[in-house]
Amino acid sequence: MASYFITGASRGIGLGIVQLLALKPSSEVSVVFAAARTENDALKQLIAGSEGRVRWVQLDVTDKDGIERASAQVTDALDGKGLDVLINNAGIMPWTEGGIEAMNDLDSTFHVNVTGVHLLTQSLLPLLEKGTLKKVINVSTTVGSIGMARTYQLFSVPAYKITKAPLNMLTVQYALSFADQGFTFLAVSPGWVKTDLGGESADLTTEQSASAVLDIVFHKTAADTGKFFNVRVAGWEEAEGLNQYDGAEYPW
Amino acid sequence: MASYFITGASRGIGLGIVQLLALKPSSEVSVVFAAARTENDALKQLIAGSEGRVRWVQLDVTDKDGIERASAQVTDALDGKGLDVLINNAGIMPWTEGGIEAMNDLDSTFHVNVTGVHLLTQSLLPLLEKGTLKKVINVSTTVGSIGMARTYQLFSVPAYKITKAPLNMLTVQYALSFADQGFTFLAVSPGWVKTDLGGESADLTTEQSASAVLDIVFHKTAADTGKFFNVRVAGWEEAEGLNQYDGAEYPW
Repeated sequence: MASYFITGASRGIGLGIVQLLALKPSSEVSVVFAAARTENDALKQLIAGSEGRVRWVQLDVTDKDGIERASAQVTDALDGKGLDVLINNAGIMPWTEGGIEAMNDLDSTFHVNVTGVHLLTQSLLPLLEKGTLKKVINVSTTVGSIGMARTYQLFSVPAYKITKAPLNMLTVQYALSFADQGFTFLAVSPGWVKTDLGGESADLTTEQSASAVLDIVFHKTAADTGKFFNVRVAGWEEAEGLNQYDGAEYPW
Repeated sequence: MASYFITGASRGIGLGIVQLLALKPSSEVSVVFAAARTENDALKQLIAGSEGRVRWVQLDVTDKDGIERASAQVTDALDGKGLDVLINNAGIMPWTEGGIEAMNDLDSTFHVNVTGVHLLTQSLLPLLEKGTLKKVINVSTTVGSIGMARTYQLFSVPAYKITKAPLNMLTVQYALSFADQGFTFLAVSPGWVKTDLGGESADLTTEQSASAVLDIVFHKTAADTGKFFNVRVAGWEEAEGLNQYDGAEYPW
């Protein structure tokens, strides 16, 4: 009977997660707040077939007032109950032709990928504190690992890399601040996924990735708070290098 | 006969570095560009006594046009020669009463501590490429280490922590991009220093810290590019925990 709030829910991994949650019995998943800037056809169809368990939330994570409105809407809908799980999945990965010396979108990328996560989390904290699960999953990336940067050197997304490292730090800071209250804050890398962001030649289907992210959501506990996990995907645990999805902790 | 450019040069560690460089013979240090928002008395005095070797550069690292003006000024002053060393020292550390859930200055702190460093570095790259030393030192902090976050938990500067982690990633990204051109990009933690930022009860004097940062500037080479070093300070190498200044690499 858990409640979920997911950002970036209109496509890619976010939509995949909402789809999988909608398939769960209502004894496990009571309501899913699917937040995105626009309610596209995929999301409309999913909501229409969900018997009221999937709810649309208009949300642009760069709009502080909009975050407050979304938060008020969810508070109303939960009618005194808490929110159990927040999955901060929305994010952008701008491609920079010419590498870091040509990068001119650092502030705007940071605003979406880090500040947006902070503002939404901050706004939903009172609901999360009333929740029974108290889980916040921040969708990060192995590409944001400082220690592994050389591995991803040829992947020309400098603003993405430089804004996912602080998302990991944000996750750790929240984890430390709320450890005494039973919260679980995690950074999770969803793998390289066949989405608009990941492209056609990626490793995983959105369903594989969404399912693997949910495995982490369901099974990790407060004992793991503040950690950074890669997903585990059957058949990819033993792969080499970039393509190894073994569910292990990843270097900062 | 090396040329230096230092930001945040009007006080604290930045001023300390300029003072030490000004004491070197002109056979070692040809010119020091001391950049800060305002030319205060300490800096005026230093410049007046420097026989033209210390030059004032008006610079606010959050002002892109101002960065271009500063860069043009330095290009003119160097008269066809390159810039050897850039020390990105300017930064802010806002205190947040109430911890991360009260943090409301993430964007502005990021803009100074990360984007400012990027924009200035980007702008000075043509001069640095013509320089003989090709060293860029980004003043970071052990407090920005994600892996060591628990150690600094009680220190309520969340925006500082969350913006120094990406400064480290920025350093690594530049290091990777310019490794083939003989550059040395380093992140350096200057220690806990008795400055306006560090307070009276800090470990090190500005001279101790500035001297220790310059040891790194003088002795690290391209073989160390992309690394994150703590300073080494005599008498503090064997101290416990936070107060150990042993010159070692620090975890990301």
